[in-house]
Amino acid sequence: MPHAADVIVGIDLGGTSARALVVNPSNEILAVEKETTKVGKKPATIISDLASLVEDVMEAGGVQRSRLQAVSIGAPGAVDPVRGIVYNAPNLRWDEVALGPKLSKLLDVPVLVENDVSVGVVGEHALGAGKSARELVGIFVGTGIGGGIISGGELYRGSRGAAGEIGHMVLMVDGPRCGCGNRGCVEALASRTAMEREVRAALRRGQKSLVPKIMNERGKDRMTSSVIQRALKKNDALVRNVMKKSQYYLGILVATVVNMLDPECVVIGGGIAERLGDDFVAPIRKTAYTYFLRRHDADRVKIVPGTLGDNAGPLGAVVLARKWLAENR
Amino acid sequence: MPHAADVIVGIDLGGTSARALVVNPSNEILAVEKETTKVGKKPATIISDLASLVEDVMEAGGVQRSRLQAVSIGAPGAVDPVRGIVYNAPNLRWDEVALGPKLSKLLDVPVLVENDVSVGVVGEHALGAGKSARELVGIFVGTGIGGGIISGGELYRGSRGAAGEIGHMVLMVDGPRCGCGNRGCVEALASRTAMEREVRAALRRGQKSLVPKIMNERGKDRMTSSVIQRALKKNDALVRNVMKKSQYYLGILVATVVNMLDPECVVIGGGIAERLGDDFVAPIRKTAYTYFLRRHDADRVKIVPGTLGDNAGPLGAVVLARKWLAENR
Repeated sequence: MPHAADVIVGIDLGGTSARALVVNPSNEILAVEKETTKVGKKPATIISDLASLVEDVMEAGGVQRSRLQAVSIGAPGAVDPVRGIVYNAPNLRWDEVALGPKLSKLLDVPVLVENDVSVGVVGEHALGAGKSARELVGIFVGTGIGGGIISGGELYRGSRGAAGEIGHMVLMVDGPRCGCGNRGCVEALASRTAMEREVRAALRRGQKSLVPKIMNERGKDRMTSSVIQRALKKNDALVRNVMKKSQYYLGILVATVVNMLDPECVVIGGGIAERLGDDFVAPIRKTAYTYFLRRHDADRVKIVPGTLGDNAGPLGAVVLARKWLAENR
Repeated sequence: MPHAADVIVGIDLGGTSARALVVNPSNEILAVEKETTKVGKKPATIISDLASLVEDVMEAGGVQRSRLQAVSIGAPGAVDPVRGIVYNAPNLRWDEVALGPKLSKLLDVPVLVENDVSVGVVGEHALGAGKSARELVGIFVGTGIGGGIISGGELYRGSRGAAGEIGHMVLMVDGPRCGCGNRGCVEALASRTAMEREVRAALRRGQKSLVPKIMNERGKDRMTSSVIQRALKKNDALVRNVMKKSQYYLGILVATVVNMLDPECVVIGGGIAERLGDDFVAPIRKTAYTYFLRRHDADRVKIVPGTLGDNAGPLGAVVLARKWLAENR
């Protein structure tokens, strides 16, 4: 007996790879597939690669093509979720690509597009560390710092759809230049990129660290989360100190956000949080609590690492799609 | 013919004075009365003074006592609006005072209590500069910096009722000590108190300024908004520079809040904004726009001075009471 269309494919489209999950109506992941997305490829090529990725993950999950109900994508950069357009995604070198309509045409199912960090926050809220919170803030620490806000149980988008830029909260007026052009954003102080900048500067000043050796062994040209994890395991003093500073800034960031929005839960996600778990989050939590204005019931605000890892984004995309389908039946 | 109970008295209870308005169902102010509230008076004395103030303002408005439907108060400090309790109001030296129930008993009408800054934001949103915005942020600059958030047209309280502490967003990690105990809060950088600290420090270093003379002439021992206004009128270089710095910090604050919450409107209120209007707000707006992450439609986010002045709080209290009465009919 043929099934009705009931599975959704969620995709996290990044600057270097795309990750796709096929998910059944009980939110069980039936299969995961990854493919590399080369920067510089034309949008049309990436979109047809994404169509193949969808077919592949359906096949890997042993799911008949007729059961595909929708595809939902978290894409980097500024996104118009209503029209499915990606504006200004520097990681992909995209500017105004009609990702949703074009992929929808290739696959003949609805394709939703939302910002990648937003879908990650929705994922952790609906199925991960922030389950059931009405008010939640997600902070993803990676090469940048992304954020998202859940208010009244729903993704909060703001009046222009531009809300959630927690990584560009200024914590140090006239501080280091950020990628966004401003100065002193927390992204310029506490992201993995900022940590790498600090480590490289210290190495140039002659400080010792295992980082160059570890990067070399692993064939990495950047200080990735795995390099950081390895260096910490080897008790590298420079990485430990740089990490501590980053956690201090992130603690103040969390407190600033909590003093303003008073959520039930702050989820810290991204590569480092995923690898180090509460070893990364505990010092952030400690600093945050000392900066809370209202301290007597500080522990009512949970500050926790994400639990979904790389699946947060694709799963959040699926959750948003299911909601959209229910509303547009 | 006797009227039904249809007028509401709104009160702004401050550390030095209480301001009461009687307002008819068309939100017209029928009378205004003020009284001084001496710090150190016992809560019971202040509460009975407030009862007299209500009677006085009703009389001044020529409104029969039987028409009083409710009293609604904006009180400083942490407030439990459900139970009408004021916790921890340092300006009044109050800690856990059952203001609502006690005044209600004296007057035999419902008495609502909400935080003073929150009611000010509600006032500007409902009847002042922010009319009809669904998402709005209010920032009140005075001896401190208070804030409030309107989301979906409603006052946003957060999960513990502690939301809106915009004055304690950290803009300068490890910066000057704030009254709250933290360091580098915008309140410690840009409030009137911070400006006065800067002016006094400069005077001690031998800089020239008209401020001491103006304070003397006016019999003020603090650098009030009126002193600042006068000094600016006389083109006092020190006050001009200190003000410029404060406006720069406030501009970055506004941008940080907008990058996070993307409201339609940011209202800047408080004594200085009220006296100087757009002369105060224009430089804040200019800095804010340059710090917006999304700039192409920056002008969709209005950044404006409040228009209700001292009436913002009492009017906002009335608006909240009317809403409460409609919901609890």
